[in-house]
Amino acid sequence: MDLIRHQVDFHIYYEDTDLSGFVYHSNYLKYFERGREHLIGVEYLANLYKSGVHFVVSKAELNYHFPAKHGDRIAVVSEGTFSKSPAIPFKQSCYLIENDQLTKELVSGQVTIVALNMENRPVRMPEQVIKYFQSRANILEQDMQSINIRNNQ
Amino acid sequence: MDLIRHQVDFHIYYEDTDLSGFVYHSNYLKYFERGREHLIGVEYLANLYKSGVHFVVSKAELNYHFPAKHGDRIAVVSEGTFSKSPAIPFKQSCYLIENDQLTKELVSGQVTIVALNMENRPVRMPEQVIKYFQSRANILEQDMQSINIRNNQ
Amino acid sequence: MDLIRHQVDFHIYYEDTDLSGFVYHSNYLKYFERGREHLIGVEYLANLYKSGVHFVVSKAELNYHFPAKHGDRIAVVSEGTFSKSPAIPFKQSCYLIENDQLTKELVSGQVTIVALNMENRPVRMPEQVIKYFQSRANILEQDMQSINIRNNQ
Amino acid sequence: MDLIRHQVDFHIYYEDTDLSGFVYHSNYLKYFERGREHLIGVEYLANLYKSGVHFVVSKAELNYHFPAKHGDRIAVVSEGTFSKSPAIPFKQSCYLIENDQLTKELVSGQVTIVALNMENRPVRMPEQVIKYFQSRANILEQDMQSINIRNNQ
Repeated sequence: MDLIRHQVDFHIYYEDTDLSGFVYHSNYLKYFERGREHLIGVEYLANLYKSGVHFVVSKAELNYHFPAKHGDRIAVVSEGTFSKSPAIPFKQSCYLIENDQLTKELVSGQVTIVALNMENRPVRMPEQVIKYFQSRANILEQDMQSINIRNNQ
Repeated sequence: MDLIRHQVDFHIYYEDTDLSGFVYHSNYLKYFERGREHLIGVEYLANLYKSGVHFVVSKAELNYHFPAKHGDRIAVVSEGTFSKSPAIPFKQSCYLIENDQLTKELVSGQVTIVALNMENRPVRMPEQVIKYFQSRANILEQDMQSINIRNNQ
Repeated sequence: MDLIRHQVDFHIYYEDTDLSGFVYHSNYLKYFERGREHLIGVEYLANLYKSGVHFVVSKAELNYHFPAKHGDRIAVVSEGTFSKSPAIPFKQSCYLIENDQLTKELVSGQVTIVALNMENRPVRMPEQVIKYFQSRANILEQDMQSINIRNNQ
Repeated sequence: MDLIRHQVDFHIYYEDTDLSGFVYHSNYLKYFERGREHLIGVEYLANLYKSGVHFVVSKAELNYHFPAKHGDRIAVVSEGTFSKSPAIPFKQSCYLIENDQLTKELVSGQVTIVALNMENRPVRMPEQVIKYFQSRANILEQDMQSINIRNNQ
């Protein structure tokens, strides 16, 4: 089992808001997915799809703590636990970024994705995908050390 | 405490799908919200907003069982439990409609919304809102009886 | 060349708005597409897709006259001109519905869609599709007569 | 009259696609808006909004040339023409990015936005906003020179 942590930042645009003036609640599922896509690697994910393996969301849970608004910059922090199982559980949070620091936690949640084959049946994770994730874990670990430092300040 | 049940139907359009060919996973939160809006009453909700009370989602949980696709017709079935508390918990499900019957359960979940005032602070539900919900419960109950019958066939 | 006219109504939900309090501008392209889907027939479109013919938007033009807001009910009125050409030009408008009448014109526009085969190449419209459109034109014409009357009142 | 040019890059995620496997056509209006927001300055726009001036889209025209797909990286190139008039016309294009070069033009279009006051009436552009745009034009010009070079290679 390998744990991969990752952070990616986004702007909040007009398109993200609703009449409350804040981010529309379902959009956090989009931000979480963007986070997972970057964690796995957007290009790798696209190639994996062509090779016959794709992922679907099987379960999602969101807790809303504080609303983001237009003009904000937010960070998606994602932790995925990879094994041979078709299911990959993710722990994910959105944070507000102020002065280059993660400050308020906006939304926290858990999302589980499942690897499917072309017939939409769950598949044990192929060996080479596991290896890819292991190598990626090491690459991303270093990035996250600097993130942790920022969070602890 | 009053329980209100409600059903509303929707088409699945191009806009709802992603490259998997099925409905994009975050859209079910939109369908659930449409269901809650119709349960409470779209117009009443808009007027309530003008009077200074609006709702935000504080918690959402979704379990994905079966995917909907373009051209499908789906039903959102919602159960809300109303009390004086600012929080209203909803139990909600999307079903596939085939031959005018609810067949497969697509997504089930729970969404809690919280009533806020203009300063975005939780407010106990105003007496007249409670009364509105009570009267509405009776109106919708009859509709749901026919739904139950359809489901049981 | 056959002209098909069609009208379909929608609610404006929270999901449709942005922080301005009004409908987010790109959503009218979604409403126009819903209008085209119902004009052609959602199910027929899905079957056509399976048979190897699908449509893409090649050109769109929108003029915004008046904004819709949460709780509104709007109508999409669509006119498509069908021929053997792969291109189908549509003239489309969204109207506000007040007291079951179409009142203010919200957005008017023109959208051209093009029929493509599996290799994403434009295809002349198959004879049976033309025939389907012709039969559909007659069916929808009667519905639109009542719409015209409402608009002229 | 001042011309401001600007470029900003985005990933194409799952959320951006539809069942065709390509980007859903209305999303290009979102990308164009992201481009305009960055051109004007996301934070400046948010502050302007608080001061009582906001923008709405009055007209949009899009020509679709080539589709983007999941995993692509695209650039939005925007040119805005600023004057004292409430209307700001933009010429905008999305390009595919391959090997850090803008290659295929995906969608080209024109979007006009109009400055409104709190009563949603058009307002002549305030003097200090004009000055801000002029100063911004000079800052962005240098960035665009490098973009032009890249495009000409």
